[in-house]
Amino acid sequence: MIDVQNEPGVNEMDIDKVGICDVNYPIQVLDKNREKQGTTASINMFVDLPHRFKGTHMSRFIEVLNEYRDEITVRNMGKILREITRSLEARSAHMELAFKYFIEKESPVSKSRSLMDYDCRFIIAYAQGGSVDFVLEVKVPVMTLCPCSKEISQTAAHNQRSEVTVQLRFNNFVWIEDIISFVERSASSGLYALLKRPDEKYVVEHAYENPRFVEDIVRIIASKLMKDEKITWFSVKSINYESIHNHNAYAYIERDKRK
Amino acid sequence: MIDVQNEPGVNEMDIDKVGICDVNYPIQVLDKNREKQGTTASINMFVDLPHRFKGTHMSRFIEVLNEYRDEITVRNMGKILREITRSLEARSAHMELAFKYFIEKESPVSKSRSLMDYDCRFIIAYAQGGSVDFVLEVKVPVMTLCPCSKEISQTAAHNQRSEVTVQLRFNNFVWIEDIISFVERSASSGLYALLKRPDEKYVVEHAYENPRFVEDIVRIIASKLMKDEKITWFSVKSINYESIHNHNAYAYIERDKRK
Amino acid sequence: MIDVQNEPGVNEMDIDKVGICDVNYPIQVLDKNREKQGTTASINMFVDLPHRFKGTHMSRFIEVLNEYRDEITVRNMGKILREITRSLEARSAHMELAFKYFIEKESPVSKSRSLMDYDCRFIIAYAQGGSVDFVLEVKVPVMTLCPCSKEISQTAAHNQRSEVTVQLRFNNFVWIEDIISFVERSASSGLYALLKRPDEKYVVEHAYENPRFVEDIVRIIASKLMKDEKITWFSVKSINYESIHNHNAYAYIERDKRK
Amino acid sequence: MIDVQNEPGVNEMDIDKVGICDVNYPIQVLDKNREKQGTTASINMFVDLPHRFKGTHMSRFIEVLNEYRDEITVRNMGKILREITRSLEARSAHMELAFKYFIEKESPVSKSRSLMDYDCRFIIAYAQGGSVDFVLEVKVPVMTLCPCSKEISQTAAHNQRSEVTVQLRFNNFVWIEDIISFVERSASSGLYALLKRPDEKYVVEHAYENPRFVEDIVRIIASKLMKDEKITWFSVKSINYESIHNHNAYAYIERDKRK
Repeated sequence: MIDVQNEPGVNEMDIDKVGICDVNYPIQVLDKNREKQGTTASINMFVDLPHRFKGTHMSRFIEVLNEYRDEITVRNMGKILREITRSLEARSAHMELAFKYFIEKESPVSKSRSLMDYDCRFIIAYAQGGSVDFVLEVKVPVMTLCPCSKEISQTAAHNQRSEVTVQLRFNNFVWIEDIISFVERSASSGLYALLKRPDEKYVVEHAYENPRFVEDIVRIIASKLMKDEKITWFSVKSINYESIHNHNAYAYIERDKRK
Repeated sequence: MIDVQNEPGVNEMDIDKVGICDVNYPIQVLDKNREKQGTTASINMFVDLPHRFKGTHMSRFIEVLNEYRDEITVRNMGKILREITRSLEARSAHMELAFKYFIEKESPVSKSRSLMDYDCRFIIAYAQGGSVDFVLEVKVPVMTLCPCSKEISQTAAHNQRSEVTVQLRFNNFVWIEDIISFVERSASSGLYALLKRPDEKYVVEHAYENPRFVEDIVRIIASKLMKDEKITWFSVKSINYESIHNHNAYAYIERDKRK
Repeated sequence: MIDVQNEPGVNEMDIDKVGICDVNYPIQVLDKNREKQGTTASINMFVDLPHRFKGTHMSRFIEVLNEYRDEITVRNMGKILREITRSLEARSAHMELAFKYFIEKESPVSKSRSLMDYDCRFIIAYAQGGSVDFVLEVKVPVMTLCPCSKEISQTAAHNQRSEVTVQLRFNNFVWIEDIISFVERSASSGLYALLKRPDEKYVVEHAYENPRFVEDIVRIIASKLMKDEKITWFSVKSINYESIHNHNAYAYIERDKRK
Repeated sequence: MIDVQNEPGVNEMDIDKVGICDVNYPIQVLDKNREKQGTTASINMFVDLPHRFKGTHMSRFIEVLNEYRDEITVRNMGKILREITRSLEARSAHMELAFKYFIEKESPVSKSRSLMDYDCRFIIAYAQGGSVDFVLEVKVPVMTLCPCSKEISQTAAHNQRSEVTVQLRFNNFVWIEDIISFVERSASSGLYALLKRPDEKYVVEHAYENPRFVEDIVRIIASKLMKDEKITWFSVKSINYESIHNHNAYAYIERDKRK
């Protein structure tokens, strides 16, 4: 059967990234407390393609996934990417895995336990002869209470759910749990699936004592990440779903400590 | 050229609804203050199909849309649906139009004017020999402040953006503007695109004086709709994007006054 | 601490459904081949609320989820709903669980094995004194090839990905695997994560021999469901993401055999 | 009233981007055939913020929007960004506007006219003392027919809807209409809202004569953009919604001709 993919490309353009996207696949993620956690990932897998080839062999991406099934963890991402470049005869490979990660959290007063879910992403790139570039992304929903409205109002302050997205490059393993924990402590309050009345009282009063602009929250997180020697590059973004507006507030800081 | 659609169906099953969906199209909506407002709709158009026909003529839906271009308003929806049944030789027709509707709003203290957008939908059905069934849907984003947290906390109360969806059948024309206005007055506060500091102070203090559970807001709106003689059927739903949880609170009431 | 929720409602309106939505939670689903499959669900949980109560106790929904953690399967859905009505002192309860379900599939010629994912939903309702109403929803992505374009074109036919949504009520247990299998056989072709060249040749030629309008596919499935004595009610919907248009084709049939 | 925003920041971190996002607003876009086209945009507006200020004045973004209402076109984007930096006392400003753009298209044989919608985006940045950086993004849905399946199958070939996203920087005005036109000519076929039977025959046969891998389409477009002297930088991405898989094929090329 003719292998159309191996014919020369339609022109002289090399392709930066070619592959498959939006593949849903069950994966295992390292869990600080329970060793491993099974979850479902949406996966993108790409390689480069020189102009001498008409097409890449898309089915091989799935074959590599199948080979590493149940072993798709952060620890062997480098191995998987090297296997992709080998199998697809490419010079570089790129992979993104987006998944929900669950953590059991205790409420602040009644110590009721419940599960919180966090959207995470691994963004990994590898070029032959180079090292593996790994970016960990964690989205942490938190509560922010507006300092301005607290100051000008005699009674209350507007507050809302916000979503903080942290992306990190590091030179030493970082637990998802630890990122979540310090982001939640940087906000007016963390969120909980289960709050009894004494917990709710605590959360509301604690948030009122810790007002945060969208600017404050990204600055506080960025400042901590600047001081953490394990972190070599980071970005931190917050989107506040303002309770007084139909639009959102946004702030973003990115720093590269490798320069 | 053979007309495959006119051949008999593959079996004896009549089809309830067949047609096209997710058609984007510019439309004109009646505007209480400015006569007409141009906006963009996402449109679904369906007819029934007896088993003696293999397929419906999908292109005719687009031809009807083109024919009524710039005249797609609530006032001639019945005419358009009758034209669809005629053109597609059907007994019934069904149409849904989802669009953003803009209203200029004044802030409560500084009287600053700005635009708020609301997601609206027309859901219209017609069966030959019957009358046109028209459902108007309006989504109104509002602020809700939790009565429980106000009661138990010494300082503040959690509040958040909520989305109230009202669906109405009526026997006398109802303005989108009027629905939005009474939904906003039923919440802890309405939302604004532009608030100066005195406005923000007012909104926050006003909301604190008007705490609303998700249950309260659907009950208050439902009670008003029960008393309005123009309304023959309604549903009201609220989703509160809780600022203390990563999940949402939900309440729903539906009443048919025609029974 | 004051229990605001137990105070009387703001007015005389009973609430049809009140509760929490968009709760993400790990669940176990019965698997025809592997006994159980772990996956992640997005969950809605509602009860009714008489007007004599101001609010429902939202945290109890999460407590019931936590109690049944790892046992949230179709077999004990009735038990969970009865527990919800008891715990929340309600007369009726309603629950929806949406989740991805994975099946290992063999390609048609090379017999290569790979995972396909399907979006499923359980929609369950219970009213005190009555039985549990269970609706199973399965979304099956398939390929459809247009009979009209095959007839009029000398060379080929347009084809595309379609999404078939089947909802069922039944009087005897039905496996998700079996629904998927008969929907795929009703389409021009099923989809696969992994196809080698001989598989791709087979799929393309098989689809060309089995052209299907959006009308054909819902009729074929509906006709089979009419004859299956285990099925007491069903709806079948297909959305074809037309490769020649920027909008989609749609067909829908619903039948209640209990009448 | 205290101006909390003008107090010093919580720490020494300068903020890269701070502002508002997801603001819906009616805008006017230049139209090659009809002078201007009214549409609805989703807008993001950001500035930088030095560490000596605690917060930016979010309401001023809306005031600038209101000031330029009905004049928000590509021609005065630079003016609007300079006004933002002035009004917010910032050194840099960034703005994104995403909107649907409609074009009347003729079908290939019957010359039936109908509207096609395209998702477009302006991404504009300005730093004091520098020039305005303008990126135009246009998403063009097209049809792609697989060369491999055409080669190996005796009868047909799988084909599907694909979405091509082109981003451009240029030194001379480029019409959205012209980008759309050459992307459609680079695909197996363009899409149409309205096709009569002779049109459908033409489209299907034309696509069969012009098979395109996801790799082919980005290479053909990239090669044309390389030769166009008005273009100084571009990226081209295609996502093919494969009709034989439940995942998508992806290819991406980016070139900076300014280097």
